[in-house]
Amino acid sequence: MTEKRITIVEKIMDANDRLASENQRRLDLENIFAINLMASPGAGKTSFILATINALLDQQVKIGVIEGDTAPVTIDADKIIAAGMPAVQVNTGGECHLDAVMVENALDQLPLETLDLIIVENVGNLICPAAFNLGTHSNVLISSVPEGDDKPYKYPNIYRGLDVLIINKIDLLPYVDFDMDYFRQGVEMLNPGLVTFALSCKTGEGLDNWLTWLKAKLL
Amino acid sequence: MTEKRITIVEKIMDANDRLASENQRRLDLENIFAINLMASPGAGKTSFILATINALLDQQVKIGVIEGDTAPVTIDADKIIAAGMPAVQVNTGGECHLDAVMVENALDQLPLETLDLIIVENVGNLICPAAFNLGTHSNVLISSVPEGDDKPYKYPNIYRGLDVLIINKIDLLPYVDFDMDYFRQGVEMLNPGLVTFALSCKTGEGLDNWLTWLKAKLL
Repeated sequence: MTEKRITIVEKIMDANDRLASENQRRLDLENIFAINLMASPGAGKTSFILATINALLDQQVKIGVIEGDTAPVTIDADKIIAAGMPAVQVNTGGECHLDAVMVENALDQLPLETLDLIIVENVGNLICPAAFNLGTHSNVLISSVPEGDDKPYKYPNIYRGLDVLIINKIDLLPYVDFDMDYFRQGVEMLNPGLVTFALSCKTGEGLDNWLTWLKAKLL
Repeated sequence: MTEKRITIVEKIMDANDRLASENQRRLDLENIFAINLMASPGAGKTSFILATINALLDQQVKIGVIEGDTAPVTIDADKIIAAGMPAVQVNTGGECHLDAVMVENALDQLPLETLDLIIVENVGNLICPAAFNLGTHSNVLISSVPEGDDKPYKYPNIYRGLDVLIINKIDLLPYVDFDMDYFRQGVEMLNPGLVTFALSCKTGEGLDNWLTWLKAKLL
């Protein structure tokens, strides 16, 4: 049984990679930069997307959002739409990650010809999303200060595949035990030189550096 | 392919349930109460176990801990052993949850005849652990205040199967936006009357009520 299972899993991963490449070709044709945004539940993915949307409002950057949820709730998608940008909610039906098919279906529902940037908010999970290519250009992880400084040591796989790391909720640093040096050492072992931005979506501190990086990608 | 895949998944779940029953029989024979402790990464599972161990130190309660990790790191198991209790680390090898086989193997390595309580610290994940019985007696979830008040709405499956909910890090309530009524309403819809303890492992506030519940289970 084990052998049969492995063969089937391999087929699923191959099919996913093929579809991911097609998604990326489609995004490139429309000149859209796309981000796969991952994090634990409650690290601040939606707040980060909203802060990015609001900061770029006066710069004519049009952002589409794909909201991955394990349940049919539109709480996050509603917030994006209220902020004036198109959003599509993908209900994974209990599945623990997005895959390339789900993103393909979501792309069908977005006005691609008008967009500069797509942010895919993956399901809140530090493990499963790391294994599935979506066809996006950049893997971004949000780690938040109250989650603790040992996360790179405990969930190494997701850190290895990252292009950018966001350390969110730095406004809570005075109230929790978080050793920034220990955290950064763990990241450096897994992904040397990883582009990292420490910021607070609540106070806006540190957001500028992230926006500078992002705007350079949209040129 | 889909049909074959479903059959294999069903067989895996059946085998897991059978093994979970055997685990529970084994625990009952030794008169051990066992908890499956679940949470997002960084909600405070290990701190909660340590606070429980320390609070019961002078009451002759012997606690064994099974530490589920996705990587070969013994950070958490080392903390338990330093606190004077036996701990076994289970490395899932990247898998996103514990299953009954992993717990069976861990039980082989614990001095069962000396224990009153076993706490299984599952992998930090709000989705996958909910689907796998381990053979424990009680499903306990830790939700922490900085994760936000919308978690029951977004991750409903894990709340449905709970016996106890811990709301941790209430010391951070003054510094974050967390509507306790909204959070509790979400929980109540999914799991009416769920036993819930709001507490802070950092300050110790609210821990007494949890300990009273736990001690009644150990009689």
